[in-house]
Amino acid sequence: MDRRQFLSTSAAALAATSLPFTPAASMSLPAMTAQQIINALVADIPGAPFPNTVDTIKAGDPNTPVKGIVTTMFATNEVIGKTISLGANFIIAHEPTFYNHADETAWLGDDPALNNKQALLRQHGIVVWRFHDGIHAHKPDGIRMGVLQALSWDKYYNPDQPSITNLPKPIPLSDLIVHCKKSLKIGKLKFIGDLTQSCKKIALAPGASGGRKQIGLIQQYQPDVLICGELNEWETSEYVRDLNYSKKISLIVLGHSVSEEPGMEWLVPVLKQKAPGIPVTHLPSGDPHSFM
Amino acid sequence: MDRRQFLSTSAAALAATSLPFTPAASMSLPAMTAQQIINALVADIPGAPFPNTVDTIKAGDPNTPVKGIVTTMFATNEVIGKTISLGANFIIAHEPTFYNHADETAWLGDDPALNNKQALLRQHGIVVWRFHDGIHAHKPDGIRMGVLQALSWDKYYNPDQPSITNLPKPIPLSDLIVHCKKSLKIGKLKFIGDLTQSCKKIALAPGASGGRKQIGLIQQYQPDVLICGELNEWETSEYVRDLNYSKKISLIVLGHSVSEEPGMEWLVPVLKQKAPGIPVTHLPSGDPHSFM
Repeated sequence: MDRRQFLSTSAAALAATSLPFTPAASMSLPAMTAQQIINALVADIPGAPFPNTVDTIKAGDPNTPVKGIVTTMFATNEVIGKTISLGANFIIAHEPTFYNHADETAWLGDDPALNNKQALLRQHGIVVWRFHDGIHAHKPDGIRMGVLQALSWDKYYNPDQPSITNLPKPIPLSDLIVHCKKSLKIGKLKFIGDLTQSCKKIALAPGASGGRKQIGLIQQYQPDVLICGELNEWETSEYVRDLNYSKKISLIVLGHSVSEEPGMEWLVPVLKQKAPGIPVTHLPSGDPHSFM
Repeated sequence: MDRRQFLSTSAAALAATSLPFTPAASMSLPAMTAQQIINALVADIPGAPFPNTVDTIKAGDPNTPVKGIVTTMFATNEVIGKTISLGANFIIAHEPTFYNHADETAWLGDDPALNNKQALLRQHGIVVWRFHDGIHAHKPDGIRMGVLQALSWDKYYNPDQPSITNLPKPIPLSDLIVHCKKSLKIGKLKFIGDLTQSCKKIALAPGASGGRKQIGLIQQYQPDVLICGELNEWETSEYVRDLNYSKKISLIVLGHSVSEEPGMEWLVPVLKQKAPGIPVTHLPSGDPHSFM
């Protein structure tokens, strides 16, 4: 069903069945479905729709009329609960819902975490869609722009070197860590480096892009510091530890969820434009870890 | 060259070339080569030698006569430097030397971290061999036994459920974390859970065994807490966060290096038996990260 067909069909359905109890406002603007909102977002992504993508429906019926949208990093039970309280029924999450990149569920079997979440979503008619490959492929990368804005570094953005932030003045690593923690609302983070090291050229890789990409960024740009969301310790951490024998370089590990969260907040005004009249709320899923 | 052939050849070589300056002790016990020591270790591993294994020579000539052995988690530059100071020339490392599981180096190209480490090893004639798949396949798993001993939990070891430790009395999560930090010399670690939770059944997964294995342990044994070395946040951390909605469960993330280090110390007496007369030293590579 295309958008125009949907509009006329749903208007007819409303007229036929809901007239006595439907307020005038609802009559004037028939709800978009989750799929129509997805289509509107994907229309802006160069090269999309992608043949192989993790950006698929994880729960619910994409033809559901949307009452409210929530953006988040992870569709946790807490985020789902708050979505229900808000009266929203469409969650756009950047990361997997079921604990693996492809959101495969067969391997989990009869699992309480899986069953509870699926039941909660089903019971409340909530649609979950992942927006990962698409938002990263957007020009500019929406996740990166959100994070740069949160760090007040968007003014240094250079589309020819999107991963590189050149600060106007060098600052000590300790100040850089404090700035990241404050800007991204991080309680504690791990790092490698000398806290007095002077940092000017920063390579920023939110999320978990993997050892070869993270090491490749260091090789290509020779930054003073690499800031990432998550890493494999036997890859990037050990590379940075060894590289420090020939060149002073630091590493800041923000945590996966908090490193990309502002990107899903960046999406809010985009969605308000694509789905006029539908409330859009960003709910941070937050870092699940504590430190001791 | 087999062991017996080596022994007669090297004894003849010593007699022919080195007599005036060779002390009597060296005459009585010709050095074993790195390969002979590897063969002696692998002989104890059920099913070994494995057709596909990461347990390969990473640097140096396996026919090098060994003057001293160092065991460690990562053959960092610091560990290599201390090995040189000790006069040793054979490093047995549990984890990769070149920043990826298979120790492939072509993708790194002309890289300063790679070049420096390879030059240092070559210059000092040091052999590096990885002992990962083998020590885990040993009965019992040598890494696990070392970690259990360090935690004083080896007395609770049950070969039918090697991953499970049942403490005789439940302890709060906060005490369990303190015990892990003290026993394994950890400065700071991350966790998920309620610090007052009572913990008795513990699933212990040192290293980075991956989301499906870590989640599988929780499904199979329903422990109070999973203790692991390293994880992918979008897998195990999010699973534990969701599972907490139906069952109280905690997660302790020790850090990769420190979570398996005692296993490479466990190897020291084994090596002393396999390579009599050769000095064996354990050098902890330590956690490269700090926290702020």
